[in-house]
Amino acid sequence: MTTTDVAAPTRAEAEALDRGDPLARFRERFVLGTAGADVVAYLDGNSLGRLPRATVARMQQVVEHEWGNRLIRSWDDTWVRLPRQVGDLIGSAALGAAPGQVVVADSTSVCLFKALHAAAGLRSERSVIVAADTDFPTDRYVVEAVADQRGLRVRWVSPPADGGVDAALLEPALLNDVAVVALSHVDYRSAQVADLAAITAAAHAAGAVAVWDLSHSAGSVPVGLDAAGVDLAVGCTYKYLNGGPGGPAYIYAASRHQSGLAQPVPGWFGAADVFAMAPAYHAAAGIERMLSGTPAVLGLVAVEEGVRLVAEAGIDAIRAKAMALTDLAVRLADAWLAPLGVSLASPRDATARGAHLVLRHPEARRWSEQLAADGVVGDFRNPDLWRVGLSPLTTTYVEVWTAMDIARSVLADLTGRPA
Amino acid sequence: MTTTDVAAPTRAEAEALDRGDPLARFRERFVLGTAGADVVAYLDGNSLGRLPRATVARMQQVVEHEWGNRLIRSWDDTWVRLPRQVGDLIGSAALGAAPGQVVVADSTSVCLFKALHAAAGLRSERSVIVAADTDFPTDRYVVEAVADQRGLRVRWVSPPADGGVDAALLEPALLNDVAVVALSHVDYRSAQVADLAAITAAAHAAGAVAVWDLSHSAGSVPVGLDAAGVDLAVGCTYKYLNGGPGGPAYIYAASRHQSGLAQPVPGWFGAADVFAMAPAYHAAAGIERMLSGTPAVLGLVAVEEGVRLVAEAGIDAIRAKAMALTDLAVRLADAWLAPLGVSLASPRDATARGAHLVLRHPEARRWSEQLAADGVVGDFRNPDLWRVGLSPLTTTYVEVWTAMDIARSVLADLTGRPA
Repeated sequence: MTTTDVAAPTRAEAEALDRGDPLARFRERFVLGTAGADVVAYLDGNSLGRLPRATVARMQQVVEHEWGNRLIRSWDDTWVRLPRQVGDLIGSAALGAAPGQVVVADSTSVCLFKALHAAAGLRSERSVIVAADTDFPTDRYVVEAVADQRGLRVRWVSPPADGGVDAALLEPALLNDVAVVALSHVDYRSAQVADLAAITAAAHAAGAVAVWDLSHSAGSVPVGLDAAGVDLAVGCTYKYLNGGPGGPAYIYAASRHQSGLAQPVPGWFGAADVFAMAPAYHAAAGIERMLSGTPAVLGLVAVEEGVRLVAEAGIDAIRAKAMALTDLAVRLADAWLAPLGVSLASPRDATARGAHLVLRHPEARRWSEQLAADGVVGDFRNPDLWRVGLSPLTTTYVEVWTAMDIARSVLADLTGRPA
Repeated sequence: MTTTDVAAPTRAEAEALDRGDPLARFRERFVLGTAGADVVAYLDGNSLGRLPRATVARMQQVVEHEWGNRLIRSWDDTWVRLPRQVGDLIGSAALGAAPGQVVVADSTSVCLFKALHAAAGLRSERSVIVAADTDFPTDRYVVEAVADQRGLRVRWVSPPADGGVDAALLEPALLNDVAVVALSHVDYRSAQVADLAAITAAAHAAGAVAVWDLSHSAGSVPVGLDAAGVDLAVGCTYKYLNGGPGGPAYIYAASRHQSGLAQPVPGWFGAADVFAMAPAYHAAAGIERMLSGTPAVLGLVAVEEGVRLVAEAGIDAIRAKAMALTDLAVRLADAWLAPLGVSLASPRDATARGAHLVLRHPEARRWSEQLAADGVVGDFRNPDLWRVGLSPLTTTYVEVWTAMDIARSVLADLTGRPA
């Protein structure tokens, strides 16, 4: 190690943080890998959360017993309830949503498509969707498509690259022609946490409805949908909810809107009586009206197991650890990486960022690739970002310390500068 | 047993059919149940196909190794290819579709929604969708929704209750205002097989495009999409393809249409470069443009295992056994059930029906419920139908014989008439 301008936290300090971590016991509830022994630090729980041990047994039980033995009979007594049952669990564990407002189904893209159509239908006399041009690609694509399909215009706001949306940025866009404000709670690049309550209130003050994508916040940052009066929301389950690769997404619609909500893909599972095979479509009275096709059972049960761990740990404890983990990473980056030309592209204030961090360097692509080869798994994001997700239920402080130690060595090698 | 007007096939005859069955060896490739020993006859493979033994091991491998150990890295080297890889397998095994025309994603409802929007976009100067008012509820609901969203009208045709659509029925509806003809290949109630080639040709002659729902035919009846020049098609995977409960659906779009196809839910997995996070949406060049969100990995791998068995058995052998199984059931129904007031609500000609059969009786609901309690698992369908699916890879002739034997006893008890 070389001397730096900032004193780096020591490994001993990281070890002490782990010893004092009230969530430390959750790590052993996940599969940590045998063939994955080549992974020194898994900092990609924000892309794909680790596998809960309970999921292994549950999948086997569902496949071998519920499908293999009980066959079609499992629909009646078990499976038909899963979209709502897992939705309620996500609602209480992660979203601050009372029961009866969340169902799990489809992909995030499809859920967002439904939510935006439903939201626009609540303000059919208005002509504009407000969205951020820095949002995740699927969000931008779906916003444009829904606007086009409904004859609306998109009024894009342009948050700073290393930040995110805030009420001041949105204020000039919130004119009385706005039907829907569609934003992400935590920015997928910078990790900035939007002020969901303030922006929802501003949207309402302008007469618009607020639709939130919670993919990067659910399970890592308290959301508080009911308290903020959010209208609709969607999100994925495979990040901090540990629901598995391509797990089904969720959609929230506030109870007060449900009886009037029209979604664009009316299918048999959204009908008032699924098995009546009725001649005309009558939407279910409650949140089930947001469903369309047959629920994806294998995905749903994996989501349920993942979310149970979030429920058990408690979102406030998870949030506290996420802030402490990212704080440690920031301090290490300041000490070790800043001298190598790395800048922090996430908010410096822990309360203003989610559970991931983005570091900027011109060589980010090669840096990220070499780190992955060395067992430090993060994400490269175009054009010059290395993104690390610090998943509170599975990431240790020593893992962060080790990852950053390797990161500076790799970058020093790449840039020919002393670490 | 009492004497009847028609000589019933004997159990010995059913046993002989099983001994001569070239597909008999496939039954042991499926989990036949231990806790499911209470199932005497599973005649619901048309609602949920049995669990292939290979799926058990594959699910475990994907969950524990690909997710648990390899984590995010499995996306790059394995999972990202699944929608197309499993789609091509379904195309070759069951649909008569050359590679590059099928992807697996979403639910059947969502796939049909996309297919109908894409199809209508190919005939944007036209104003009508032709569909059957006897089609499966989701199909009718989605047809109505897409028509409403695009300012089209639905011209409903009304097939006979115990039959299905044919070219003669459709002919008066196929005027020069028709954009899309949207039908099911095998009727979900009667099991009538529509003449897909003739109807597709008639649709084309009228200047329309043809969209088929193959849910009740794929894996039991050869489809021949390419040979018939079908434009788009969708279907589910959890029936004769044995893909598991709520398994992802598939969507076919003929190569000749792909470059001009616009689907309504543009998401990141349908983009030309999924991970480019591009500012604007550019659809993938090929069939991947029909994708939207993140692929449902756990569902996809289960589908792959199920379809492999169809590929291995061969769709022509499957079709031959389906006809023989339903023939046996019809002969038994004629001999044993007709005297109890049961009528056949499916085509009598085996070449005109799929792999399920529907029997009509005023007491069908109670009959079906009592049969299920006695271990003979079929479906009740409103208002007076008992539906049995005879899945050629898993159903034996003796199973059919036994089921019908119990069916007549139960119905005799219910109706107070001698069996």
